[in-house]
Amino acid sequence: MLKSISDLVERLDALEAVLDYKFEDRNLLLEACSHCSFSNENRSDLENNNERLEFLGDAVLGMIVSHFLHQNMTDREGRLSSLKSSLVDAKACREYVLHLGIDDYLLLGKGERQNEGRGRETLLADFFEAIIGAIFLDGGFVSAEKFFLQHFIDTVLDRIKEPPRNWKAELQDLTQKHYRCQPSYELIKETGPDHSKLFVIGAYIQEKLVGTGTGNSKKQAEQEAAKCAVILYE
Amino acid sequence: MLKSISDLVERLDALEAVLDYKFEDRNLLLEACSHCSFSNENRSDLENNNERLEFLGDAVLGMIVSHFLHQNMTDREGRLSSLKSSLVDAKACREYVLHLGIDDYLLLGKGERQNEGRGRETLLADFFEAIIGAIFLDGGFVSAEKFFLQHFIDTVLDRIKEPPRNWKAELQDLTQKHYRCQPSYELIKETGPDHSKLFVIGAYIQEKLVGTGTGNSKKQAEQEAAKCAVILYE
Repeated sequence: MLKSISDLVERLDALEAVLDYKFEDRNLLLEACSHCSFSNENRSDLENNNERLEFLGDAVLGMIVSHFLHQNMTDREGRLSSLKSSLVDAKACREYVLHLGIDDYLLLGKGERQNEGRGRETLLADFFEAIIGAIFLDGGFVSAEKFFLQHFIDTVLDRIKEPPRNWKAELQDLTQKHYRCQPSYELIKETGPDHSKLFVIGAYIQEKLVGTGTGNSKKQAEQEAAKCAVILYE
Repeated sequence: MLKSISDLVERLDALEAVLDYKFEDRNLLLEACSHCSFSNENRSDLENNNERLEFLGDAVLGMIVSHFLHQNMTDREGRLSSLKSSLVDAKACREYVLHLGIDDYLLLGKGERQNEGRGRETLLADFFEAIIGAIFLDGGFVSAEKFFLQHFIDTVLDRIKEPPRNWKAELQDLTQKHYRCQPSYELIKETGPDHSKLFVIGAYIQEKLVGTGTGNSKKQAEQEAAKCAVILYE
């Protein structure tokens, strides 16, 4: 793991080779690699940490993924949104970093280097967004899009092919296993005009509310309610 | 208000003049103008409604605003995120449509034409996102960015200049007025490593919890908790 700016500067060629992107302005890449825990400890070496690039990269990644899904799928907005979430959330971004094998390039403060828990997932996810943000600033949207798709188009295509998780079936299995009974669903509220009804449904185990969900159909709202409950159990 | 595709087709020149953008592919503009309540009633006239363009445009608008704030402000990520939200949320998008004066170009189904409530805000907001999505597909990111900034740079600059709302002061005024007492704040949870502590704070009126908020400082978490409470009262 790198411990100083000079370690990183020596290895920038290697990092650019892995990314398969050559920066015009390498300061952007240095900034993307600097977690705030590092820049707080080493103020004299570095002016910026990667949080502003992460803010920007979050939007860039969202747009790359939205554009790809819009152009390559004919599904309605609901399915596109749910796929998009799964391709841009912290878990996905952490996996992109591990897939590229660039986690060692992130400069961390002393305390953070030992951290292996949830905080580490967030920090790797932020690192990926910062890298995307840096490529966008350096080479424009087309470069950022090219970078992402070149490395991750297979991940995206695999995700598109996966059938959506059946949360109701998963909740049923969980409930059967732990409580030896079935979950039930109740309509809590129904609102909106005919062409865009909104249903709010609750999922219950032994009459206790364990999740709520909304959707344009009762089926969809039940799935969302079951999803909440399953995620809470996971 | 327009009632048919042919009404709209006749007025596309006028709409493009208001947008100050000329489409290569006018089918994209027609799609952006078609709410699902209209396309459901007129299936033979029109294949698509604007919900997929709205999905795309949401990401495009997010990126335009993120890019502008990143390039024109030196603030930290928290302030950028909160400004961004206020510039891309449904209320903001509805105001963009009304500012351009293009609300009459949205093709609605019969029921929707009478709707004046909250549903109308959403539907105008979706319309704006669909227009941005259509311009992006037609002319690329730079065209979409140029369109947005050309019409709304003053709105963005004004928003940047506004001091952030002081939610704690607002909650104090409300509480004084309605309950003749002061709100109180309590730390509910404190988590995370030193460089990125996360605080969860509750706002209470007469010992009743009225809002919760999270933040990297207690001050920020209190503001967020007060904000929840104030919005609930509004």
